[in-house]
Amino acid sequence: MREVTAETLTQAFLNYCGPETSPRLRFVLENLVTHLHAFVKETGLTHAEWRKGIELLTKAGEMTDEERNEFVLFSDVLGFSSLVDMVNSNPEATSSSVLGPFHILGAPDLAYGGDLKRDNDGATVVVKGVVRGPQGVPISGAVIELWQTADNGLYSNQDPQQSEYNLRARMTSGENGEYGLTTIRPAPYTVPDDGPVGELLHATGRHPWRPSHLHFIIKAPGYSTLVTEVFPSDDPYLDEDPVFGVRADLIMEYVEQTDPGQVPDGFEARDRLTWPYYSVDFDFVLAAEAAE
Amino acid sequence: MREVTAETLTQAFLNYCGPETSPRLRFVLENLVTHLHAFVKETGLTHAEWRKGIELLTKAGEMTDEERNEFVLFSDVLGFSSLVDMVNSNPEATSSSVLGPFHILGAPDLAYGGDLKRDNDGATVVVKGVVRGPQGVPISGAVIELWQTADNGLYSNQDPQQSEYNLRARMTSGENGEYGLTTIRPAPYTVPDDGPVGELLHATGRHPWRPSHLHFIIKAPGYSTLVTEVFPSDDPYLDEDPVFGVRADLIMEYVEQTDPGQVPDGFEARDRLTWPYYSVDFDFVLAAEAAE
Repeated sequence: MREVTAETLTQAFLNYCGPETSPRLRFVLENLVTHLHAFVKETGLTHAEWRKGIELLTKAGEMTDEERNEFVLFSDVLGFSSLVDMVNSNPEATSSSVLGPFHILGAPDLAYGGDLKRDNDGATVVVKGVVRGPQGVPISGAVIELWQTADNGLYSNQDPQQSEYNLRARMTSGENGEYGLTTIRPAPYTVPDDGPVGELLHATGRHPWRPSHLHFIIKAPGYSTLVTEVFPSDDPYLDEDPVFGVRADLIMEYVEQTDPGQVPDGFEARDRLTWPYYSVDFDFVLAAEAAE
Repeated sequence: MREVTAETLTQAFLNYCGPETSPRLRFVLENLVTHLHAFVKETGLTHAEWRKGIELLTKAGEMTDEERNEFVLFSDVLGFSSLVDMVNSNPEATSSSVLGPFHILGAPDLAYGGDLKRDNDGATVVVKGVVRGPQGVPISGAVIELWQTADNGLYSNQDPQQSEYNLRARMTSGENGEYGLTTIRPAPYTVPDDGPVGELLHATGRHPWRPSHLHFIIKAPGYSTLVTEVFPSDDPYLDEDPVFGVRADLIMEYVEQTDPGQVPDGFEARDRLTWPYYSVDFDFVLAAEAAE
C-alpha cells in the first residue's frame, strides 16, 4: 500500500475487501469504484471541483427530510433512476417509470366507474383499460394504485388546500381485468429546484418542468409489480422531461368527446359530466414474476 | 425523448445541457454521467440496490454536521480523495495526502525548536527538516501548520480533555528553510465507523484503523500549497490505511536516541528530555505554483 499509485489504487481498494464480502457486493463495488476512479483520472478532477461535489452532497443532506429526498432527485435528473428502471424492465410488459417522491400509502378504495374528480377544478377525463399478463390474458383482482396532481400542479401532500388523499385511489381490476374511473386531467409541474439539484439544472440551462402524468402502481399475485406513469400525447414537456421518465409505450391519447354516450354505463360521473370531456384508454401488461 | 432507451439515455442527458453550460462543467458532467450509466448497465443494478444506495446517502446526510462530514469519509474510504490528491500531485514535489476532517484554523505560533509536547503523555520526538523548492533551494518564511493526535488517538477537537489547540502549531521556516520542534509520537486511530461508511467497512471486512501520522499544511509565496501527512516506518497499519493516504515518500524513520546531544542547540525541551526519545528528519519539497 505504501507504493500505491493512481494506476494501482483501484486494485488496492479491491484487495481490502475480505473473504466475508458477498460476491454480489464485491462485484458492484468493483464496478462502482472502477468507474469513480476512471472519472477522477479522465477528468483530472481538481481539489476545488472535489470540494464543490462534497458541498453539493452536504447541501443535499441538509435539504432531505421525510417529505423530500434530494438524493433521489439527483438520481432522477442524472438519468440514473430511469436507467435502473430500464435495465429492470421486461420487454414483454408495460415500461416501468420513476416512482417519484409523492406516493403515499393508504389511499381509499374506489369501485369500478368511481369518480375521483368530485370538486376538483380541471377537465374531466374518463380513464379505462384492462390489466393483462404477457400473453394477453386479463388479470382480475389486480390492485391498482393511482395518484396525480390537482389542476394547480400540486400533489395532495404538497398542498395544504387539498385533503390528504385527494386524487388518490386504490382500485381492483374486474373479472375481465377491467378498470375505470373519472378524474381530472393532471397538470405539468416542476421538480424542486431550490436546492443543489436546482443549482445543477440552472448551471446547465435546464428547466424543471415535468410533463403531466397519471402515476400507477399495479400489483397482482404471480406478476412483477409495475410502477409507471402515463403521459398525454399533447403535453408540451413530453420531449423535455427532466427526470427522463417518458417512454413511447407510456404515451396515451386524450380524445376530446362531445357525446355523453362515450361514458360507460355504471360510471358514477355519467349524469354530471361537463363538456368537453376527454377519454383515455390505456391497458397495462404485467410481466410474470421472475423465479427467485 | 419519448424514444429514449438504455442505449440513448446518456446522450439524451447531454442534449439537455444548454449552450450556457461552461465547457469544463459539460466535460466533467459528460464523463461522470457516462460512468454512472455504465455502472448501472454493467451491474444490472436492481431497484433494491438503488434503494440501498439512496438509504446510505440519506443516512450520510443525517450524520453530517460541522464536526463530521460522512461524504468526505465515503470519498476517503473509496480511494476517491487519495486519487484526487494523486492526479493533482507534482512529481517534483513531496506527495500530497488527504486533508482529513481534523484541521482547524488559528493554531498558535511556535518558534524554531519550540516544544509542543508539554504535559502530553507519549514518547518525545524531535522533528526537524528543511523546506525546499523543486531544485533544492531552501525556502525561508514558509508557513508550516502541524496537527496530530494525542497519545490516546484523539485530536484536540474530538477530546474534551484536551485544550483547544493541543498538539497544533503554526511555524515559519528559517533563513535556510529549516523547521524544528519537539512533540509526541502520534497514535493510530479509527475513522468513525458508526455510520454508513462503517456499514460499508464492516460488510467488506475492513478495519477502520489509520496509521499514525503528523499532518502538515505548508504554504509559501510562489509555490503550490502542500497538504500532506508523514507516517512512521514501523506503524502496524502502514499497509492497511482505510483512506489510502500512505505514499512511499511520506514514510519517515523514527530513530531511537540515547544521547541528548542529538537534540539541537536552542531546542526548548533539551534540558527536560526523557529517555528513550526519537528523532525524525523530514524535508519537504514544494512545487512551483502553476501559472494560471
